[in-house]
Amino acid sequence: MAKPYVIGIDMGGTNTAFGIVDARGNVIASSSIKTAKHAKIEDYIDELYDEISRMIAANEAEGKINGIGIGAPNANYFTGTIEDGVNLPWPTPIPLADMISEKFGIPCVITNDANAAAIGEMTYGAARGLKDFIMITLGTGVGSGIVINGQMVYGHDGFAGELGHVIMKRHNGRTCGCGRTGCLEAYCSATGVARTAREFLEIREDDSLLRDYDIDSITSKDVYDCAVKGDKLAQDIFEYTGNILGEALADFTTFSSPEAFVIFGGLTKSGEYIMRPIRESYEKNVMGVFKGKTKILISELKESDAAVLGASALGWEIKED
Amino acid sequence: MAKPYVIGIDMGGTNTAFGIVDARGNVIASSSIKTAKHAKIEDYIDELYDEISRMIAANEAEGKINGIGIGAPNANYFTGTIEDGVNLPWPTPIPLADMISEKFGIPCVITNDANAAAIGEMTYGAARGLKDFIMITLGTGVGSGIVINGQMVYGHDGFAGELGHVIMKRHNGRTCGCGRTGCLEAYCSATGVARTAREFLEIREDDSLLRDYDIDSITSKDVYDCAVKGDKLAQDIFEYTGNILGEALADFTTFSSPEAFVIFGGLTKSGEYIMRPIRESYEKNVMGVFKGKTKILISELKESDAAVLGASALGWEIKED
Repeated sequence: MAKPYVIGIDMGGTNTAFGIVDARGNVIASSSIKTAKHAKIEDYIDELYDEISRMIAANEAEGKINGIGIGAPNANYFTGTIEDGVNLPWPTPIPLADMISEKFGIPCVITNDANAAAIGEMTYGAARGLKDFIMITLGTGVGSGIVINGQMVYGHDGFAGELGHVIMKRHNGRTCGCGRTGCLEAYCSATGVARTAREFLEIREDDSLLRDYDIDSITSKDVYDCAVKGDKLAQDIFEYTGNILGEALADFTTFSSPEAFVIFGGLTKSGEYIMRPIRESYEKNVMGVFKGKTKILISELKESDAAVLGASALGWEIKED
Repeated sequence: MAKPYVIGIDMGGTNTAFGIVDARGNVIASSSIKTAKHAKIEDYIDELYDEISRMIAANEAEGKINGIGIGAPNANYFTGTIEDGVNLPWPTPIPLADMISEKFGIPCVITNDANAAAIGEMTYGAARGLKDFIMITLGTGVGSGIVINGQMVYGHDGFAGELGHVIMKRHNGRTCGCGRTGCLEAYCSATGVARTAREFLEIREDDSLLRDYDIDSITSKDVYDCAVKGDKLAQDIFEYTGNILGEALADFTTFSSPEAFVIFGGLTKSGEYIMRPIRESYEKNVMGVFKGKTKILISELKESDAAVLGASALGWEIKED
């Protein structure tokens, strides 16, 4: 029998959120600390240990934690290590899983943020019961977590599922944070939507509520606010974004023919302004044999809890010996 | 214990090849019949049964056949059915697996041609020991078979692995047999190479041995023959083809991060004329985290035996009760 609780830790460059989660996906208790406060990773882990231990004690959960799951940028499930090239205040690679499980005396599994979200969705959310689905996270970047035949796809090196970096524009594409050009992420992340807004405002000449904003600091939230008010240019920005995302999803289907895509992250707050063009573009672009078969769903995880929930779900993978 | 032999059947629109295969991948005996000769599927299966029974008897293999594997166009592994929209002389869908296993009294599994090739490669060929690889078949079309974590990817409906139909040119792309435009298959199949040859001959003005051929009937073999003789235009055609294929493989890696791609089919006979540009384009285009990690291999299956071998490997999936 698995123990009744798991700990989920969502480690970001700025904040680290964590919580105790039960088998039904209820977050029993949660809190956070500043990631960047500590110059040394050891001090960070000490503070995390103190805070989580206090939380465990307050909830009478001592000895009842099945495992600790961590979602972190560039975290490798196979090696338990945070690899190079991430926005964290410490030198990489960091053998995080080992450090945490030694400190806590509880088994620890880590994976990247998007995979954690997919596992969370499969365990507690819109993908319950699905064996073949693809999670797409639309945030600052575009992440993905792929589940095939009920199993997370990690690839031979643990880095599978970088669908934000398929090339959507092979000529004259936007620069991407990965150092290449034309990536899906450069168009369909929240940042990508803001870039599209700036492009549209420069190229087009029609009136728009967006012209009242400072063009250099427009956000995807501003675009949504204007779209809701009936602003044509703002709505066209979502149309453009959804169209590209639909084209991308249509290509992904040729790979694993999923039963559903689950879309997660801030951009989904724009609701049908973004979801309708995604669905329309997907059905228009997908190969005949796949038409009408694949659902495009919005995540059912509460945004505030999602990262912790997703990470926590990894804690159930640990089997008692 | 599995029985010592399997039957592989490669069902094409024109011919059906079949053979008896042992556990080491030796084709003990093989033959073929005309697929299109019979107006009724039942008559076709009768002839296949007579021919294969004779072969089994001649090789003293009665009672020693573990299973029958069939590779066929649009064959669905899950349903055992050949689905609609294929170039076969009989009405579809055809419940082929059931019809064959009833007639022969031997369990039968079917899948599409490219998946059969991938299973063959994993069982007997270049992918032995690999748990994560993608088979790309370059023939009249471009097919694919994807293996993740040692398992064939079928998708929720059995139609996964249509990588010949990801979109490589979103504007002004070539028409594809699937009814859309810009698909990988329209550029990188043998037919695609011939189309490129015709385009190059029309657009460019430099001398080429290819100008001695009838432009409307140029084949990828003609392009190879000229490339070998040092013809620059012919070599550029492979450069163009390999470049697109490398871009496509780089995108596929973001999905499943395979240990290797295995390239199969007629076009691989062009050797380094096609393989060098594929490898160079792949390394140039792939995302940083994947650089230098993934091998691009040529199939080790003998072309003449490959389809039968690949199909036969499915026969090992059948476990004796």
